[in-house]
Amino acid sequence: MSMSPPDALNYERFQQLQMRLDMSRGKPAPEQLDLSRALLDDAAAAGFRARDGFDCRNYGLLLGLPEARELGGELLGVPPAQVVAAGNSSLELMHDALAFALLHGVPQGESGERSAPWRAQGDIAFLCPAPGYDRHFAICEALGVRMIAVPMRADGPDMDVVEALVREDASIKGMWCMPLYSNPTGAIYADDVVRRLASMPAAAPDFRLFWDDAYRFHHLTDTAHATLDVIAASAAAGQADRVLMFASLSKVTIAGGALAWFAASPRNVAWWQRCTSVRTIGPDKLNQLRHVRYVRDRATLDALMARHRALLAPKFAAVDEVFRRRLGQASGVRWNEPEGGYFISLYGPDGTARRTVELAGEAGLVLTPAGAAFPYGVDPLDSHLRIAPSFPSLDEVRLAAEGIAVSLLRVLETDQALAT
Amino acid sequence: MSMSPPDALNYERFQQLQMRLDMSRGKPAPEQLDLSRALLDDAAAAGFRARDGFDCRNYGLLLGLPEARELGGELLGVPPAQVVAAGNSSLELMHDALAFALLHGVPQGESGERSAPWRAQGDIAFLCPAPGYDRHFAICEALGVRMIAVPMRADGPDMDVVEALVREDASIKGMWCMPLYSNPTGAIYADDVVRRLASMPAAAPDFRLFWDDAYRFHHLTDTAHATLDVIAASAAAGQADRVLMFASLSKVTIAGGALAWFAASPRNVAWWQRCTSVRTIGPDKLNQLRHVRYVRDRATLDALMARHRALLAPKFAAVDEVFRRRLGQASGVRWNEPEGGYFISLYGPDGTARRTVELAGEAGLVLTPAGAAFPYGVDPLDSHLRIAPSFPSLDEVRLAAEGIAVSLLRVLETDQALAT
Repeated sequence: MSMSPPDALNYERFQQLQMRLDMSRGKPAPEQLDLSRALLDDAAAAGFRARDGFDCRNYGLLLGLPEARELGGELLGVPPAQVVAAGNSSLELMHDALAFALLHGVPQGESGERSAPWRAQGDIAFLCPAPGYDRHFAICEALGVRMIAVPMRADGPDMDVVEALVREDASIKGMWCMPLYSNPTGAIYADDVVRRLASMPAAAPDFRLFWDDAYRFHHLTDTAHATLDVIAASAAAGQADRVLMFASLSKVTIAGGALAWFAASPRNVAWWQRCTSVRTIGPDKLNQLRHVRYVRDRATLDALMARHRALLAPKFAAVDEVFRRRLGQASGVRWNEPEGGYFISLYGPDGTARRTVELAGEAGLVLTPAGAAFPYGVDPLDSHLRIAPSFPSLDEVRLAAEGIAVSLLRVLETDQALAT
Repeated sequence: MSMSPPDALNYERFQQLQMRLDMSRGKPAPEQLDLSRALLDDAAAAGFRARDGFDCRNYGLLLGLPEARELGGELLGVPPAQVVAAGNSSLELMHDALAFALLHGVPQGESGERSAPWRAQGDIAFLCPAPGYDRHFAICEALGVRMIAVPMRADGPDMDVVEALVREDASIKGMWCMPLYSNPTGAIYADDVVRRLASMPAAAPDFRLFWDDAYRFHHLTDTAHATLDVIAASAAAGQADRVLMFASLSKVTIAGGALAWFAASPRNVAWWQRCTSVRTIGPDKLNQLRHVRYVRDRATLDALMARHRALLAPKFAAVDEVFRRRLGQASGVRWNEPEGGYFISLYGPDGTARRTVELAGEAGLVLTPAGAAFPYGVDPLDSHLRIAPSFPSLDEVRLAAEGIAVSLLRVLETDQALAT
């Protein structure tokens, strides 16, 4: 079967192709994973001795290998003592941070005393800029934390709304933030947004920003955007303990086998250490050592990310090209051109997203469920679709974009026919 | 400095040696880690393709690589579908199982409905056979679970005490068990003990055995002891969901970088999957693949464990030889000769353990803190010492055993002088 889109593809022809493609998740393509082949090939050469001779095979180093914490510090712009190098998943760290807060409370005030366990403080809530990352919302839902959606804009969450809520409502204990190339809208938090988040008064004295810097290195254009240093900004605003930062190398080296970092104030790191010291005798330091010797520094990482971009940018461009051609004239349809990250957000007229996903699914193309980017999986306008073009081949992406377009167009035609 | 013990070493001479040795933890020696050098050397050859072609570098397989679950099934005697292959630490799995139970409840009854979150059920407690594993107790203490010590005997916990408590007290939600070569007494649970644990009536309908099979493969004699299959026994007794089993390869291959397993009933595994699906996108499957290709099967593992035994057994024998020579005539002093595992328990007369650890520490020998093997770190008799001979060299172990003996003898002399 040729993967080139047939001329004048319509929904019926698309359906006949039965392409059997899953575009629901932001997974790196095999070609991207191949970029770090040396990580596997040179594993033996990396050995097991840390810089200071420590035997990385044995137990110990709860907060991670010192050189892995230093690499994290360099990449995140945080002093290494405030960085924890952990396992293969930043999502785990976010889940555990919330679980620890529920079970143990978090540091509060200059003394570092813990607040009451969040679980014991009655109904608690998180602010959720929406559209946002479905796995953030799934953590809140599973752990019984009420979610309050706040509008997401191109420069970050609507800060007037955020400030008003956080100032008034002491049940709001935290907020999810993806500052750069936010999943799935590609939003880039403006400096002023970061400053306001770092300094806004909060009714809850133990309020926390869960700062998921997942796409910090993942540029798709020549402009390497960077957001304001939120840990420094919060410290400068007298809110040193406000930020819990998370990041990983999952979409830099090996998606399922990289390393993740937690970064925060010294008091938060001490809290993390106390909470995790009963849980583990240390992370996989051999994998940390391999990564330190492979990724090395910011310049090496940037060169690697340029190779990722060379594979990813054409896929994003292909989606944009198809959407312009097929959907450019469609009333009420828009999408973004992200400058980084892993997703494109496509918006149809209200009430069209769910049916578009259904139609695509019936033709063999699995999209992220409509509503997934909203708390409780409910998009109040039923308008938003998350497109994840990273994993399929370029030809598949092009055909999938055609398929999404004809599925949405079919929904629009149906509605128009009913209206006339 | 010669490591051979001087003739007639007394406490003063031992103190002058200032040996600076840490015997507080059960860490494998570098020579043991060297046994699995091929795991690192052949990492590149192991590649990234699973048996079915799955790309282990990418996200996915929440419950672990199928062949890693199968290996766990073979080694633990459990169907692979009831085995989860996870990260580098079974301690993490135990902590998370208790945290999930506190936050979400556990399956209860045939329907698999969850019980109320343990945290919401008021004061809850765990039975803790003592002496036991200090890290088990640390998890309970950190998570606010009350600990009830029950006597440990050579064939397992005192079942009359256990049955009476569990039958009467609905606040008792769980019990720590290390069935084989129990840490630190070397106890081996008798078949009848396992049967009684599996079948005893429990006041709490969501009661769980936290079954830490840490030393399942770690024999020190020609007799490869095995305990009764507790998952099968509990299913046969109509208590299919009673057992949560944990194990790892940490003391088989690489202490800080192996893989851990969780095994339980299908309902418990489904519960684990729901709880962890919001936490992670899967374990490090590359490390699982490397382990599957290195450990392969039970026969390969047994051959590897024989090499561990060849390194470990002389250290245990050296401690025993020194203790016989130095402490054999000391009134009220006894110790065990474990047939497997990582520890020797030494008992002095009541009120001597803490001072013995102090005296050893003043001479540069760090022992596990007295009381560590008891809930809340309190040995009511102040009698028990945990000896961990695995990590130091054989010469160091011999000298350390002399040092422990002369420290304890000094305490006994002091007490005798005061008494006369």
